[in-house]
Amino acid sequence: MSAADPLANVRVVLCGTAHPGNIGAAARALKTMGLSRLVLVAPQRFPDPQAEWLAVGAADLLHAARVCSSLDEALEGSVFSVACSARVREIATPMVTAREAAARIAEVARSQPAALVFGNEAYGLTGAEVRHCQLLATIPANPGYTSLNVAAAVQVLAYEVRLALHGDEAPRERAQPLASHEELERFYEHLERTLLATGFLNPSCNKKLMPRLRRLFGRARLEEEEISILRGLLKSLVRPRQR
Amino acid sequence: MSAADPLANVRVVLCGTAHPGNIGAAARALKTMGLSRLVLVAPQRFPDPQAEWLAVGAADLLHAARVCSSLDEALEGSVFSVACSARVREIATPMVTAREAAARIAEVARSQPAALVFGNEAYGLTGAEVRHCQLLATIPANPGYTSLNVAAAVQVLAYEVRLALHGDEAPRERAQPLASHEELERFYEHLERTLLATGFLNPSCNKKLMPRLRRLFGRARLEEEEISILRGLLKSLVRPRQR
Repeated sequence: MSAADPLANVRVVLCGTAHPGNIGAAARALKTMGLSRLVLVAPQRFPDPQAEWLAVGAADLLHAARVCSSLDEALEGSVFSVACSARVREIATPMVTAREAAARIAEVARSQPAALVFGNEAYGLTGAEVRHCQLLATIPANPGYTSLNVAAAVQVLAYEVRLALHGDEAPRERAQPLASHEELERFYEHLERTLLATGFLNPSCNKKLMPRLRRLFGRARLEEEEISILRGLLKSLVRPRQR
Repeated sequence: MSAADPLANVRVVLCGTAHPGNIGAAARALKTMGLSRLVLVAPQRFPDPQAEWLAVGAADLLHAARVCSSLDEALEGSVFSVACSARVREIATPMVTAREAAARIAEVARSQPAALVFGNEAYGLTGAEVRHCQLLATIPANPGYTSLNVAAAVQVLAYEVRLALHGDEAPRERAQPLASHEELERFYEHLERTLLATGFLNPSCNKKLMPRLRRLFGRARLEEEEISILRGLLKSLVRPRQR
């Protein structure tokens, strides 16, 4: 089951979900993060039009979802499973944050199947369910209100797993060519000349003005096109005004 | 407006939201992450029982929400605003990932008000709205299906902002006292003695067995109570069997 994309090795198991809308929203959350394997343990209403409605473009994951009667059945073949829970328990399963859990899942999923397990909306995972997993993950939250919706929790964990496996990269912006050193220097020269001409820059007492302006434009990392805009602007300032 | 908790300096602005359920789910997402300031720009239906229903325990944020007619009004007093969008645009606003954007928001929010801005469910933020912000944030997603629900996107960004300001910490587990060095050594001694007695350990050819077992138990970081369980177990192995 180790696939080209290790995200295919990560299954998400929802136990005893009460509201089909949450199953649909979870499917959508999975698909946005490139996960595809949804397993449902004893869902209270499934299939259901509410699930389809909230899945929007992720209905394919609902149709491919495996429905099981027990967590053991859902975890068959998985070598590492993480229980996701907001509640702190005394029991023995070691607890880490969502980010750390995602790193551990990613490590395994590069070569073997792993699972993320979520509980029922009202009471979460039972102690017995948590003990079937190797790790307990918790999403850091407001101590006064830790009640994440189950699909929201799935979204956060799926997001962390995606980042752990694919890195935190923004899609490339259409590259705008940056101005070269010479272009920049010509611009600064033009700027200084203009400020002298307008009288704004008095070279005997304003020694810090040009360095400040260089700092500002340097921070902005000017593009070629922006340099022409700025130089056009400078030119317009000293051109004799027309009526 | 700089408060004791910098999370109070972060407002979340929802522009032209169509479904009141998404406003409620967003309020819940905010509250779970300790954010409290919700601003709605021209919501299509608000207030609405659907919003209350999906806010669950976060209805207080809905009641305190500010409703504005323009994004400019919503951003009044904010010194740094981040547009959240799935779409890659050609326009000039610099784009970073959600995590990087959260770090930038956190930097500002330690002393001054900042804003996260989200668009309408169907068409996101307009170009004009994005240009009112200083930064464009994108959540890394499946290139084949980037369609995060707006409340799910709010959840991810709010989560990242919380982590950027409060760190990625799991609530403390009830500390179980770990076994001391002497207790561990007495256990290894007991284990070795037992394995010699049962004949499993042959000291002339099995030189690697004890180091392997030390490695295993060392990795598990044994607790005091576990040592007594294991030593009880060892004792039971060499005790003359009873009928």
